[in-house]
Amino acid sequence: MIEIAEDRYGKSRVRLMKVTRHPHGNDLREWTVEVLLQGDFNAAHTTGDNANILPTDTMKNTVYSVARSSTATTMEDYARELADYILARNQQVTSAAVRIEAALWRRLTIDGQPHPDTFMHGSNEVQTTRVERAQGQPFIIHSGFDHLVLLKTAHSAFTGYIHDPLTTLKETTDRLFGTAIRAEWHYTSAHLDFDQLRKKIRETMLHTFAAHNSQSVQHTLYAMAHDALEAVPEIDDLHLTMPNKHCLLVDLSRFGQDNPNQIFVPTDEPHGHIEARLHRTP
Amino acid sequence: MIEIAEDRYGKSRVRLMKVTRHPHGNDLREWTVEVLLQGDFNAAHTTGDNANILPTDTMKNTVYSVARSSTATTMEDYARELADYILARNQQVTSAAVRIEAALWRRLTIDGQPHPDTFMHGSNEVQTTRVERAQGQPFIIHSGFDHLVLLKTAHSAFTGYIHDPLTTLKETTDRLFGTAIRAEWHYTSAHLDFDQLRKKIRETMLHTFAAHNSQSVQHTLYAMAHDALEAVPEIDDLHLTMPNKHCLLVDLSRFGQDNPNQIFVPTDEPHGHIEARLHRTP
Amino acid sequence: MIEIAEDRYGKSRVRLMKVTRHPHGNDLREWTVEVLLQGDFNAAHTTGDNANILPTDTMKNTVYSVARSSTATTMEDYARELADYILARNQQVTSAAVRIEAALWRRLTIDGQPHPDTFMHGSNEVQTTRVERAQGQPFIIHSGFDHLVLLKTAHSAFTGYIHDPLTTLKETTDRLFGTAIRAEWHYTSAHLDFDQLRKKIRETMLHTFAAHNSQSVQHTLYAMAHDALEAVPEIDDLHLTMPNKHCLLVDLSRFGQDNPNQIFVPTDEPHGHIEARLHRTP
Amino acid sequence: MIEIAEDRYGKSRVRLMKVTRHPHGNDLREWTVEVLLQGDFNAAHTTGDNANILPTDTMKNTVYSVARSSTATTMEDYARELADYILARNQQVTSAAVRIEAALWRRLTIDGQPHPDTFMHGSNEVQTTRVERAQGQPFIIHSGFDHLVLLKTAHSAFTGYIHDPLTTLKETTDRLFGTAIRAEWHYTSAHLDFDQLRKKIRETMLHTFAAHNSQSVQHTLYAMAHDALEAVPEIDDLHLTMPNKHCLLVDLSRFGQDNPNQIFVPTDEPHGHIEARLHRTP
Repeated sequence: MIEIAEDRYGKSRVRLMKVTRHPHGNDLREWTVEVLLQGDFNAAHTTGDNANILPTDTMKNTVYSVARSSTATTMEDYARELADYILARNQQVTSAAVRIEAALWRRLTIDGQPHPDTFMHGSNEVQTTRVERAQGQPFIIHSGFDHLVLLKTAHSAFTGYIHDPLTTLKETTDRLFGTAIRAEWHYTSAHLDFDQLRKKIRETMLHTFAAHNSQSVQHTLYAMAHDALEAVPEIDDLHLTMPNKHCLLVDLSRFGQDNPNQIFVPTDEPHGHIEARLHRTP
Repeated sequence: MIEIAEDRYGKSRVRLMKVTRHPHGNDLREWTVEVLLQGDFNAAHTTGDNANILPTDTMKNTVYSVARSSTATTMEDYARELADYILARNQQVTSAAVRIEAALWRRLTIDGQPHPDTFMHGSNEVQTTRVERAQGQPFIIHSGFDHLVLLKTAHSAFTGYIHDPLTTLKETTDRLFGTAIRAEWHYTSAHLDFDQLRKKIRETMLHTFAAHNSQSVQHTLYAMAHDALEAVPEIDDLHLTMPNKHCLLVDLSRFGQDNPNQIFVPTDEPHGHIEARLHRTP
Repeated sequence: MIEIAEDRYGKSRVRLMKVTRHPHGNDLREWTVEVLLQGDFNAAHTTGDNANILPTDTMKNTVYSVARSSTATTMEDYARELADYILARNQQVTSAAVRIEAALWRRLTIDGQPHPDTFMHGSNEVQTTRVERAQGQPFIIHSGFDHLVLLKTAHSAFTGYIHDPLTTLKETTDRLFGTAIRAEWHYTSAHLDFDQLRKKIRETMLHTFAAHNSQSVQHTLYAMAHDALEAVPEIDDLHLTMPNKHCLLVDLSRFGQDNPNQIFVPTDEPHGHIEARLHRTP
Repeated sequence: MIEIAEDRYGKSRVRLMKVTRHPHGNDLREWTVEVLLQGDFNAAHTTGDNANILPTDTMKNTVYSVARSSTATTMEDYARELADYILARNQQVTSAAVRIEAALWRRLTIDGQPHPDTFMHGSNEVQTTRVERAQGQPFIIHSGFDHLVLLKTAHSAFTGYIHDPLTTLKETTDRLFGTAIRAEWHYTSAHLDFDQLRKKIRETMLHTFAAHNSQSVQHTLYAMAHDALEAVPEIDDLHLTMPNKHCLLVDLSRFGQDNPNQIFVPTDEPHGHIEARLHRTP
């Protein structure tokens, strides 16, 4: 017999820009929202009966309507409101997941002063949250960031690894270490000062990345995750993905030139892929 | 206490083009390969000891070396060889996963004849496989495709759904239905004629998509997955993701013109997200 | 004194999907349209007076309104109608340029028959046109295509080039030759069977690419452009851009393996850039 | 007769990362270089004779070799060296053009101090230069930037434009104004403090964008270009392209909510395209 093992549906890439207007100037938030629902949707699949289907177009409208009425200033708190709005009105929905990515906008500084209403887009780094709730159950909240691109030009080595007949890589005690970090952590509560914790986690990881005497990507990844978990007791699980975006030393000896770690080719592919999840155990 | 809950690493986006030369002409395969390993890598993380680390650069070399010696003509068979090559030589590795995407190249037809050595790149559709093995265990093989973009201009309706105060979508019995399909299925054996089965699964789904009298994306997705599972007993699980890439009917009445389902705006965002996994139960 | 040397404005990426419904089935066209205007817009720039400004939002509406009333089946003929619609109603506009890219959709074949209303997206190749007219002047029409990706696995050499102290490339009489062609040609008249001519130009170039005994990208580019100009007297100028998308032979000798032109790494960057414009002189 | 009207060739997307090591820490530059040559290449096209062809692979090597020996700290000065290196050794080349894009890397601040060797990738904004020289002629140098994304949440209006039967846009005295600026200016000399001038031009434009009481994109574009030309006598020509990246006000009245310019949908397509080139006349 052929059956549905699992299914979900919703709306992706709902783009929202919210301007909050204060006497002294404006705040700007740009969020891209995804809503995914699980529930009793078997009849839609098997017989084309849509009686239990909340249209994804309505989810999009809900994103905007709740954004207008909401006073939340963090993504996490807004996502909780959005999930609850849908869960309360749709008993056929057994669980709702809201994922949000926030773009980086920086207020311009003009004549040495923060400008009240002009902004510049920052890097591709996005701040993320993933808020899930089953009907009648507590919230599960993961937050993180993605596309945080870092590079160390010193204190990165890679030696002592396995050598086999297909090894051509040379050991080095001084290489460039470039990466694009994706992080996601789990909060132990749904009622926290999310923006302040996010800032502390991110800064702890930046600090460790800069200070670390790296023996490998794994070595630095572990140190960053470990230090963030140690610094922030409000999280108990942290997943880091850190591709090794290789910068290849150019062989200039063919042209009678030396290259004392100065001229590199940055490459996008292939790239190393390193990930680990650390957790705090009692 | 802070511990590693899980970790893996490897090489991503290793690009391989293989030309097989026959008396009557050449065959062309373009594969992008990823190798990910799990195993005993704790010391690398915690103390920077790389003694158990097979460098990702060596994995890249292994992709090319095994490709040269291999006589496999399917991605699945090549991926099995590659995984076994690494597992046999690295006892610290507990399991290996090889993922491959194949690009679409079509032989040119010139003067009505297939040309022996000239090819045109096809659509962005990729054929995929994901082959995993733990030391001493059987292979687990999932294959599929991604970015297969289809559009129906008839026989697609969406009616009878929930109406609430935030509903603005109009019911319709005649809309455009555009999607970009991602499919992944599980094979019940590691020794099959993978290319022939892939072809049959894909053609069954195309056939159902074209013939279906769609009441929703869910309705058509289910029919496609169901028919493929029914047609191919060598698979027992099929996961389909089918975004609803909306084409919006332009309101021309503002300009005194009708628009009998002729003029649309295709959009990329926001989009519906619909996915389900079907399986065969005994 | 500081003055405007030149200026233009308009709307870009207006996406249009047009379904033409026939008794036997539907036709599908997906066009992305750009409209750019030049004219007397100085006051808008210097004093903020918009009296001469046709809003780009109105241009977007015009794209859809003209698409509904138009019976044109080619991009070129539709673009002429669109340009004339704007020129006739806006005397402050001195010239209008319409650029269109057409996506590739193929009708599905099901059970050996062309299906009346189901389509699959083809490759990233786009067909293009650029139609320009100054008030009271004749049309200037360039058409072409872009992102046509081809690869030859034989009959491509590169020898006899300059060797200097920075040369490391090895001469070869047998390499892969991959490229992504951009072509644009000029029509000698505004009243032609554009779709048929486009087909003939494109097929002539494909034929030459496949048949050519290539000594360099320049050599093949010239042959393709030359043959198309010779085959189609309705065009008098043809601009071809053909990047050299390198496929690097993998050195497997380090592993005791040969590599008789079988295993390559396809690369995106860096790439050769080769372009030339050929014209017919009386 | 069919002839070559113009042609050029070279290497694109040569990626270079240069680390300059000082006692107090490292500097990091990431440049993507393109070299394009014009000259006597007819025989390569028409007969396949490559005797006059400097391989693009050699150009790539030249980029790295000159980068090693160069002491230039600006892109403009390095590009001049690179162009002259090729022109001096290749008399068949009549002119050389070097184009460079510089990525944005910011030194990390750790514990309130600039870190000697750790960097974070900034926004997608790139700094550009285009340096051209014909044999025996002076340099022509254009510099600029691209992908500088700005947004004003106040002091932007659009009123008083043409209203015709296809107009649906509402006049507004308060809208969001988002754009992604591309700028390119011409220097009057090849021997200037390029980094300092670049900084002054860019800051002048930022200042004007923030301070301007905008009546249209054209109005603000003109003011920015005008002010930069006025502030920097070392440039005499400035080309600005400023797409209007629309943020659409969401109509919440359907849900009984107001929307006093707070909730918007940012969109990528379609977008307005506005460009102008200003120059200083004697």
